[in-house]
Amino acid sequence: MNTKLGLSVNHMSVDCVVLGLSDSTLYVLLIKRSVEENGETVYDYKLPGGLIYTDEDLDSAASRVLQELTGVRNQSMMQFKAFGSRDRISQRDYKWLRETLNEDIHSLVTIGYVAMGRIGRKLNLHNAGNEVCWMPVNEALKMNLAFDHNVIVEEALKAVRRHAEADPAVLFTLLPAKFTALQLRMLYEFVENKEIDVRNFKKKMMQLAYVEPLDEYEQGVAHRAARYYRFDRIKYKKSRRGTD
Amino acid sequence: MNTKLGLSVNHMSVDCVVLGLSDSTLYVLLIKRSVEENGETVYDYKLPGGLIYTDEDLDSAASRVLQELTGVRNQSMMQFKAFGSRDRISQRDYKWLRETLNEDIHSLVTIGYVAMGRIGRKLNLHNAGNEVCWMPVNEALKMNLAFDHNVIVEEALKAVRRHAEADPAVLFTLLPAKFTALQLRMLYEFVENKEIDVRNFKKKMMQLAYVEPLDEYEQGVAHRAARYYRFDRIKYKKSRRGTD
Repeated sequence: MNTKLGLSVNHMSVDCVVLGLSDSTLYVLLIKRSVEENGETVYDYKLPGGLIYTDEDLDSAASRVLQELTGVRNQSMMQFKAFGSRDRISQRDYKWLRETLNEDIHSLVTIGYVAMGRIGRKLNLHNAGNEVCWMPVNEALKMNLAFDHNVIVEEALKAVRRHAEADPAVLFTLLPAKFTALQLRMLYEFVENKEIDVRNFKKKMMQLAYVEPLDEYEQGVAHRAARYYRFDRIKYKKSRRGTD
Repeated sequence: MNTKLGLSVNHMSVDCVVLGLSDSTLYVLLIKRSVEENGETVYDYKLPGGLIYTDEDLDSAASRVLQELTGVRNQSMMQFKAFGSRDRISQRDYKWLRETLNEDIHSLVTIGYVAMGRIGRKLNLHNAGNEVCWMPVNEALKMNLAFDHNVIVEEALKAVRRHAEADPAVLFTLLPAKFTALQLRMLYEFVENKEIDVRNFKKKMMQLAYVEPLDEYEQGVAHRAARYYRFDRIKYKKSRRGTD
């Protein structure tokens, strides 16, 4: 059946879109890359990514690459899409691959992974090399990232949206244990990809049995201290069963 | 950053899970494969799949492979997952790859695509070679399919479920233009992966503004002729806007 097909041997990589929320801004983890161009060193940013070993599972490769490049360990990640456009390697990317890997790579299929975490201390410890940084997603998407990483970040956001529509609990993995109404609204605005009216949102939020108001308020803030809420996973599961 | 990584060169393929509904059974498109084992020819089944050319986009490869192997043209497909477990090639698969492609392949990452269509005349025309067949999904999953194709079919079903939860319109692409309540219920049972009470389902169905009862009934059936319904895409879109 396949006898007439030429064999295709491809280089393969994984790229990790690690999202994190701080205050009310969504960040993505990027790595600074330097390339020589016309005798000058220029910089741009890329997602943490790397080639897959031939004896390695895809999921293991994603975890290994993320840990090697950023120090982030045991981060649960979700594979969301493979990217194999034949124009995903620019002249600059090609040069960078050759400098970094000492090999000519013209075609590279990459498997995208997305992770949602909290921006924590752990990462900052490994931040020392100044190659790894958190960047607001909006700003990242305005830049020309390496390879087709703009597309990969956008597709990762879509994957999170789809996932959150089917199972809103996903969103709460991005939030700290105690969060404000503002933080939750920002997340919903991101998922629905539009501005949400503040008062309507508050009303809706009150109706969510699994978002529980606490008797705690923000400390040491210049504006009026906001109330904290928590996500009640047990009530959430009950509320989901009700929809069956 | 990546300098210490050995280069990984992989063979890459696409595999297509084409689902089709006939009466109230969900089918998957499979290809019969023959392998010599201990001097005897044995048969099993595989998904339509094949290697990707190095100068080809992933989506184009999926369309090309499906058309070459089954004659199905212009079928819209959705990429759903990459499969790269290192144990996905059995001894039999390895032998079959060597016989078919005249090459030793020990590692093969495949990108899964899923399509939902109606079992139509078009396909049957190309069915002549008796290598391509529709098989009920339940039966297919009871067999030992080639490679990790059991896993791929299961993951494709999960992808359709997730997709249909977020956007039920997906289900109606599997149904004929006129369908019965039984057909719709069977689809929902598949999506929710459980039996649904007939009377409750009828009630729920009546509440869906976008499922419109027709004044037409089944013809020439032994049992009581069932009413036909149609999917109203415009009403569907309106009902979705309401949920924002």
